[in-house]
Amino acid sequence: MKTFYRKELLLAPGPTPLHPEVLKAMISPMISHRTQSFQDLYKEIEEYLKELMHTKNQILLIPSSGTGGLQAAVKGCLSMGEKIVVASNGHFADLFSRLAASNGMNVVDVPFPWGQPVDPFVIAASVKEHKDAKALLLIQNETSTGVLSDIKTIVTEIRKVNKEILIFVDAVSSLGGTEFRLDEWGVDVVVSSSQKALMAPPGLCIMSLSDRAWAAAETVTCLDYYFDIKRIRKEANRHMTLTTPAVSIFFALRKSLEIIFNEGMKNCFGHNKALQEMIFELSQSTGVTPLGRLPYASPTVTALVVPEACDPEMIRNELYKKYSIVSGPGLGKIASKTFRIGHMGYVDRNDIQMFFNSLTEIISGPRARRPK
Amino acid sequence: MKTFYRKELLLAPGPTPLHPEVLKAMISPMISHRTQSFQDLYKEIEEYLKELMHTKNQILLIPSSGTGGLQAAVKGCLSMGEKIVVASNGHFADLFSRLAASNGMNVVDVPFPWGQPVDPFVIAASVKEHKDAKALLLIQNETSTGVLSDIKTIVTEIRKVNKEILIFVDAVSSLGGTEFRLDEWGVDVVVSSSQKALMAPPGLCIMSLSDRAWAAAETVTCLDYYFDIKRIRKEANRHMTLTTPAVSIFFALRKSLEIIFNEGMKNCFGHNKALQEMIFELSQSTGVTPLGRLPYASPTVTALVVPEACDPEMIRNELYKKYSIVSGPGLGKIASKTFRIGHMGYVDRNDIQMFFNSLTEIISGPRARRPK
Amino acid sequence: MKTFYRKELLLAPGPTPLHPEVLKAMISPMISHRTQSFQDLYKEIEEYLKELMHTKNQILLIPSSGTGGLQAAVKGCLSMGEKIVVASNGHFADLFSRLAASNGMNVVDVPFPWGQPVDPFVIAASVKEHKDAKALLLIQNETSTGVLSDIKTIVTEIRKVNKEILIFVDAVSSLGGTEFRLDEWGVDVVVSSSQKALMAPPGLCIMSLSDRAWAAAETVTCLDYYFDIKRIRKEANRHMTLTTPAVSIFFALRKSLEIIFNEGMKNCFGHNKALQEMIFELSQSTGVTPLGRLPYASPTVTALVVPEACDPEMIRNELYKKYSIVSGPGLGKIASKTFRIGHMGYVDRNDIQMFFNSLTEIISGPRARRPK
Amino acid sequence: MKTFYRKELLLAPGPTPLHPEVLKAMISPMISHRTQSFQDLYKEIEEYLKELMHTKNQILLIPSSGTGGLQAAVKGCLSMGEKIVVASNGHFADLFSRLAASNGMNVVDVPFPWGQPVDPFVIAASVKEHKDAKALLLIQNETSTGVLSDIKTIVTEIRKVNKEILIFVDAVSSLGGTEFRLDEWGVDVVVSSSQKALMAPPGLCIMSLSDRAWAAAETVTCLDYYFDIKRIRKEANRHMTLTTPAVSIFFALRKSLEIIFNEGMKNCFGHNKALQEMIFELSQSTGVTPLGRLPYASPTVTALVVPEACDPEMIRNELYKKYSIVSGPGLGKIASKTFRIGHMGYVDRNDIQMFFNSLTEIISGPRARRPK
Repeated sequence: MKTFYRKELLLAPGPTPLHPEVLKAMISPMISHRTQSFQDLYKEIEEYLKELMHTKNQILLIPSSGTGGLQAAVKGCLSMGEKIVVASNGHFADLFSRLAASNGMNVVDVPFPWGQPVDPFVIAASVKEHKDAKALLLIQNETSTGVLSDIKTIVTEIRKVNKEILIFVDAVSSLGGTEFRLDEWGVDVVVSSSQKALMAPPGLCIMSLSDRAWAAAETVTCLDYYFDIKRIRKEANRHMTLTTPAVSIFFALRKSLEIIFNEGMKNCFGHNKALQEMIFELSQSTGVTPLGRLPYASPTVTALVVPEACDPEMIRNELYKKYSIVSGPGLGKIASKTFRIGHMGYVDRNDIQMFFNSLTEIISGPRARRPK
Repeated sequence: MKTFYRKELLLAPGPTPLHPEVLKAMISPMISHRTQSFQDLYKEIEEYLKELMHTKNQILLIPSSGTGGLQAAVKGCLSMGEKIVVASNGHFADLFSRLAASNGMNVVDVPFPWGQPVDPFVIAASVKEHKDAKALLLIQNETSTGVLSDIKTIVTEIRKVNKEILIFVDAVSSLGGTEFRLDEWGVDVVVSSSQKALMAPPGLCIMSLSDRAWAAAETVTCLDYYFDIKRIRKEANRHMTLTTPAVSIFFALRKSLEIIFNEGMKNCFGHNKALQEMIFELSQSTGVTPLGRLPYASPTVTALVVPEACDPEMIRNELYKKYSIVSGPGLGKIASKTFRIGHMGYVDRNDIQMFFNSLTEIISGPRARRPK
Repeated sequence: MKTFYRKELLLAPGPTPLHPEVLKAMISPMISHRTQSFQDLYKEIEEYLKELMHTKNQILLIPSSGTGGLQAAVKGCLSMGEKIVVASNGHFADLFSRLAASNGMNVVDVPFPWGQPVDPFVIAASVKEHKDAKALLLIQNETSTGVLSDIKTIVTEIRKVNKEILIFVDAVSSLGGTEFRLDEWGVDVVVSSSQKALMAPPGLCIMSLSDRAWAAAETVTCLDYYFDIKRIRKEANRHMTLTTPAVSIFFALRKSLEIIFNEGMKNCFGHNKALQEMIFELSQSTGVTPLGRLPYASPTVTALVVPEACDPEMIRNELYKKYSIVSGPGLGKIASKTFRIGHMGYVDRNDIQMFFNSLTEIISGPRARRPK
Repeated sequence: MKTFYRKELLLAPGPTPLHPEVLKAMISPMISHRTQSFQDLYKEIEEYLKELMHTKNQILLIPSSGTGGLQAAVKGCLSMGEKIVVASNGHFADLFSRLAASNGMNVVDVPFPWGQPVDPFVIAASVKEHKDAKALLLIQNETSTGVLSDIKTIVTEIRKVNKEILIFVDAVSSLGGTEFRLDEWGVDVVVSSSQKALMAPPGLCIMSLSDRAWAAAETVTCLDYYFDIKRIRKEANRHMTLTTPAVSIFFALRKSLEIIFNEGMKNCFGHNKALQEMIFELSQSTGVTPLGRLPYASPTVTALVVPEACDPEMIRNELYKKYSIVSGPGLGKIASKTFRIGHMGYVDRNDIQMFFNSLTEIISGPRARRPK
């Protein structure tokens, strides 16, 4: 049984802690998703998100996790069996490949070392090679390794070799935490969700598509009713969702976006960046090493490589047991030597300081040791 | 601009008004969906739902609307092109047919008059005829017409002619508002969602499958990653979801189920039934007629047929404009002569009384008249 | 045991129902009352209240009910044994007399018929007669009878016969629901509280004093530490309270004042007035009669005289038992023939309609009858 | 303007941080304080408090701060001019003396060194000397110095020399944080409030009186209407308050008491004690010294003596500016060398660790220095 005087510090890489005002937003009286009140709510969120993504395109809000948006992109823009290239530098790229394959696509993985960003020239060369590929998937921020890829440069290089390929960007753990410019960069589909740097609870998927992506969608017979972007767009045109959404999360997201814009996008990005720098500095004396190295270290999530003798799961257990700190496990092939913390959303310098104080205590003790 | 002293009365057929304790539940500090705390939360909800559905089978909780669960049933238990029979007595049956067809299935609609329940003998005859059908879709409570079908009797008749056909039941607007016995009745897949008679906010889909359904799923290659019930089950085995769910809605649903069970299932069903009877009584003097007739009138949703001279949309507009009452539009082919109210969840006798007082005022006035 | 599907309708004459945004305000993280954050909060409330009272004087916020403010006025502006005239037209005037006497003052009651406002000429004549009286107590809105007295005219008449007498006004159930002009009218002390027409929860007393009142206070040795207005003023000068206040109620009051000013003072007053008129209209067919007659009928509280054969307490019990409506009892010498409803704060037309529908049912039934 | 990503850590010596469940309690729909629902609420709180105070006597709940209860004790049990002895070992004893004198009493201060507990033999000797004293005031936990006096032993010694003197105990910052046994120890009046170790928001004063105190009250003509304990008792007999209380704080206090009793009184006391020990340990390397020494160090509040060269106000400013930590100022004659933190209510080990990490940084830096 949990004692009441242990306050959990949520540093998982999503969901993130919620600002008191965001919590409050959720206790608004329920409204129907088929009313003007809901349409107004949708519109306000859409306006904020357009500004955040620097796009003039429509925003789709879908009752699902971010994964649902990736499926919607694949199913809506590609026909079964078409080829998609995946720039693969971490676990979430692997998950996407599985998703695309499960949905019947022909997936080509282009591997990059985990902990490294996607190399623009290498991925451009692959795209050039796979002339028949209809789409490319990039992850702006690999949540498993804490690495930010340079979407702008990558897209520039891709366009030199293929003007038509659809470029999908998974911005799930980056949107709201770092810059994203859909129109200017030339991205075709972006997918994000409510519970990461946008600091709302989970429950809402966010998408936007370029004209090129919509044109492609027109040629496709979507075999997925729930995630059929053409049906979704039709409803979005009147600021509604295709199926009943988590209205409470709409309330929350409107408030968290209001908070972000009151603060200023740049200040928010700067805050996340400052936390990343603080992590780098405090890591040095603690014996852990951020996996993502500068200048590609993620401003929102850091994967920490633990000392050889230590077991990351034992560290995580101790962090929770002794200090009530919730971190994220290492994932995929680096699971046995890393664990992760989120530093997006409503996380401040004190939280990071507290984390490192606690980590220092644990790492120097016997319980962090890997069993022999 | 809305003035502050208008309190909306939400009588839409979902989402429903929220009990103050359910609202409170949502401001619990956020937790990660990959922790023991979340697993405990899932388990508590699962136990309540098993009792409510009278099943020993596992409960799947999916981050989507109820529609997502219907897609999961179709995609998980049928292969593309397989035949599914739809007992069609309203708009939501039509929507399901569209969903199944869009997902690549061969759909056979068996039509019943709107406003009537599914006739057990007629549907059994159709099933007998379509020997090659792999599944049958029944809707326990047609939300468009306010009609409850007798699932128990229907399943009994079906089983006389086909022991193997998978019987899917859409219990979206009935679960929590009327009896449901998965195991005893012999249903194979049930789908519901959080925001109707379960009186939580929308955002969570609920499913349970029989052994027969799981066995069928084993033979299918699911071409839908997000709604792949086999993947979802694997996570549900450890009381987690496949992708990040709306954790806040889990908090809310746990609380609403706790309230329902504190009250007692039977009392809750009785309350909904009593509201239905009150509606029948009050309708008489108002000039509207419930579409669903006894004994099949829905305990949770009523479609009201308006007087010939009246326009249901004008009535709904007046209800909202003058009395801040939110109702649901008529749907499908009966849209021009009906509109609907939900009387499930946190709705009481005063709410229904207020609705009829207001309706009486409006119907007798000039603004309800159909334009000539 | 209470069943969950009974929604209480709070029509007591205070506390009043709370707007959802006011409820939300209370879950703000706690702050210390000795910080800049608290001072800012105090200042915002003070600015709103100055505007609402039309005064340039300082606002005192005291951790007590409104009664505390009346005691503070008496103890701070009068020395023990000094004479105070009370314009007495209801139960709360009686209570005040008791309060003043208990605090050691010499009280002169000037009686007016219950259900009538204070007559400006009669009270002026009494004041003239009691030349040695140091203060006069007026109640703007008698909460026991639902009668509004015309403070402006009364003060004008008083000043013709006595320029120095301190005029105290109890505006507990009127401030926020009708006009109040401290400076222009020449009132010396006004006392109100958070939970009536200001539509915040109870817990906070509001006062403001004229220069004349402050000058009087200087001559008095206050024998009441807690309600010593000179000590309280000293703290109020730096926007703090003398002792620890209910900070949560400060949060709530700031929000309710924000709502009131967003709506516009005049619109709020108009809304309350409209509810009063609605009550008069609906009373006619119900068999009850508002005690306060036009033009003095209170815009915020109505005392209803029940038919001879009926017992108001039996009516109130039935209202609660059958319809979950909370009303206020009759008070003082009219207790056996009246009961009361508040129509201030977050109360709308539907609430009043629901009240009269329910009342009509009850009054026509056997359970409202006075036992023989 | 405050940036959103600074989370305040409230370590003031009251109000204290609020548990999420206590915050939630406050958004319950408002109820009238003249209903059965309120009476039930009062009763539940009374039962908890009786158990916490180990008393069979009635609990008075008064809409005021704790100071109000002290005034009620003095005004209700003493007549004007009667003598009260004050055991004075800190600022709050001084405040009480001022309160008693302002209320017209004859106050005898018995001084003890600040930072020391009240010496049972010294105070007993003073009581013996002042045979005509009607009451004695003891403070269980001096919030200005962080010192706990041994009430049990003191009362034992007092009773050896005076069986009749009324013993008042101010338990404002101790009740809920350490043991208190009203009946067994022979205390006559205890006063506490909601916002300290009881971890509810401020707004509610708590009192209980022995039979001896009630007998004394019968002989007194109370010249204080608001704090007249005889009137208050009459209402408390039916579980109501004399004047309208902060109902929201009743909701909150019921929940916080429920949490305390779920945890177990002893565990709560132990938790506070453990925090005090943690503070002693962490102080050593930081250069600050707790003023209250063992075994009298308070389990709920610590006054820290800063190094000679440092200015406590500068330290507090830095704590807030750099780390968003809210502490309490030094008070009275030790203001220039101390500041204070509360470690009662919803405060955990991480909070204390964070405080000392931050304090260490600040004390070693230039900004903590006293200006020359």
